[in-house]
Amino acid sequence: MPSTIIATAFKDEIRSSLQKEEVTPKLVAFLANADPASRTYAIKTAESCAQVGIQFELREVTRDQLEDKIIEANVDDDVHGIFVYYPVYGGGQDQYLQNVVSAKKDVEGLCHKYLYNMYHNTRFLDEGKEMKCILPCTPLAVIKVLEHIGVYNRMLPYGNRLHGRVMTVINRSEVVGRPLAALLANDGAKVYSVDIHSVQEFHRGTGLKHLKHEVFDTNLKLEDVLAVSDVVITGVPSPNFKIKTELLKDGVVAINFSSSNNFLPDVETRASFYAKAIGKITIAMLQRNIARLYKYYNKN
Amino acid sequence: MPSTIIATAFKDEIRSSLQKEEVTPKLVAFLANADPASRTYAIKTAESCAQVGIQFELREVTRDQLEDKIIEANVDDDVHGIFVYYPVYGGGQDQYLQNVVSAKKDVEGLCHKYLYNMYHNTRFLDEGKEMKCILPCTPLAVIKVLEHIGVYNRMLPYGNRLHGRVMTVINRSEVVGRPLAALLANDGAKVYSVDIHSVQEFHRGTGLKHLKHEVFDTNLKLEDVLAVSDVVITGVPSPNFKIKTELLKDGVVAINFSSSNNFLPDVETRASFYAKAIGKITIAMLQRNIARLYKYYNKN
Repeated sequence: MPSTIIATAFKDEIRSSLQKEEVTPKLVAFLANADPASRTYAIKTAESCAQVGIQFELREVTRDQLEDKIIEANVDDDVHGIFVYYPVYGGGQDQYLQNVVSAKKDVEGLCHKYLYNMYHNTRFLDEGKEMKCILPCTPLAVIKVLEHIGVYNRMLPYGNRLHGRVMTVINRSEVVGRPLAALLANDGAKVYSVDIHSVQEFHRGTGLKHLKHEVFDTNLKLEDVLAVSDVVITGVPSPNFKIKTELLKDGVVAINFSSSNNFLPDVETRASFYAKAIGKITIAMLQRNIARLYKYYNKN
Repeated sequence: MPSTIIATAFKDEIRSSLQKEEVTPKLVAFLANADPASRTYAIKTAESCAQVGIQFELREVTRDQLEDKIIEANVDDDVHGIFVYYPVYGGGQDQYLQNVVSAKKDVEGLCHKYLYNMYHNTRFLDEGKEMKCILPCTPLAVIKVLEHIGVYNRMLPYGNRLHGRVMTVINRSEVVGRPLAALLANDGAKVYSVDIHSVQEFHRGTGLKHLKHEVFDTNLKLEDVLAVSDVVITGVPSPNFKIKTELLKDGVVAINFSSSNNFLPDVETRASFYAKAIGKITIAMLQRNIARLYKYYNKN
């Protein structure tokens, strides 16, 4: 399982770094919905945190208490990272709550400041370039998969290593799909971002002319872009959405981050690499984010 | 038309204040959608701004250019206020854009900082209590109507003047309905906030025990809360949603802010006050906000 290998490598790194520093960051996760998937994810996160030496505390609250409880955790010096299982209300109110979480504790990388930096290809929080920006966990997990399997071309300079790659991302949510398309395009890829309404192109222009990606509306359809994509990443939260394998390029890299797998079983007959889930790596990225935030804001 | 009277009073105040200060704030409005209602609103805003001495400039851009154009306006010292006609993308990406607008130029009061202050009943931006917070224009327009017609009880201290009032707000969007319910509850009202899924209660507790409103889920239905509401404010953007007049309390204050009127024509047989639109007052609040932002950030 490449996902396990990748996750384990990161977790080993995080564990030894925390051991060396002799610190135990504390992650507080708020469960305010009744979604069994959230609870399962909380259990897995707790197990994984125990393995690397991060203190994990699940706080179950009603959704009406959630904002006040986040604010309490924001100002509690014993808490180093805050995680919320979304959706809580769904829609705009959840996005409001993402901004209530202090940037200093935002392990999910979903507050406006971090998203803005990400979209603008601003990679450091400080002038001295010592504090790397915090990135959303699921998009970051996808990137780590692509790095691991060599889709990132190490012959190219950092920041341009996806030059020449054509990719499709199916999902344009504000928490995964749009950030992911932007990150990949900022690294040099030409990315087709697909949602139920349209296909958009994200890229930095021919020869990576621009410092950050630009976005263009297209009249393309899903089958058009799948036919030319070296990498297809999909996260449609519906058991009814399945990508017909014959629409994929031979040798495609196929990555699913939906809880309902969007690929059909025969995808393996065509894909050069196939990951049906990346949850373990996502948790490792969450741990990496809290380790960074601890270092940035809790030096003494 | 009470709406015109209220709007005119505010506009007169803004005009004379700007004349006295000898300043001409510049409002830049971005039109990036094809909605004819946005264009109509832009034309009305332009006319109204000309009347009070605010320079209004409409900038038509594609939605893909919008973020960069907002950022240009953020750093342009000649621009004092920025307005965007939403929806552009709809959903979370619009909420992201609301936070791209600099707080110093956010005449709509929709950036996280202003919304957070509003929900938390923090009324001033500064310790010295000289800079009142910027509030979203449509909720603020509703409040000005309620103040004008005496629903706000001047015998009570500022901040508690809706104590004892029971109100229903139908719409719980992040741009109008939820902010409005919170503002009214923070001023002392017991507010039922209704959307398609549920009815919530917003209030500060018996005897206004709390400094800000709290929110409670209920099992109530629309007809239950209409039967006890002194004020009903509605903004459902659908021509099919109409409130049956017999569900309203006799003597109700009825205010519609939807472009499709949610009240039936016979509402006037039951209402003690009825406003079928508040667009003019909303524009006056926008002007008030830019006049304030000009004063706060452009003193010299």
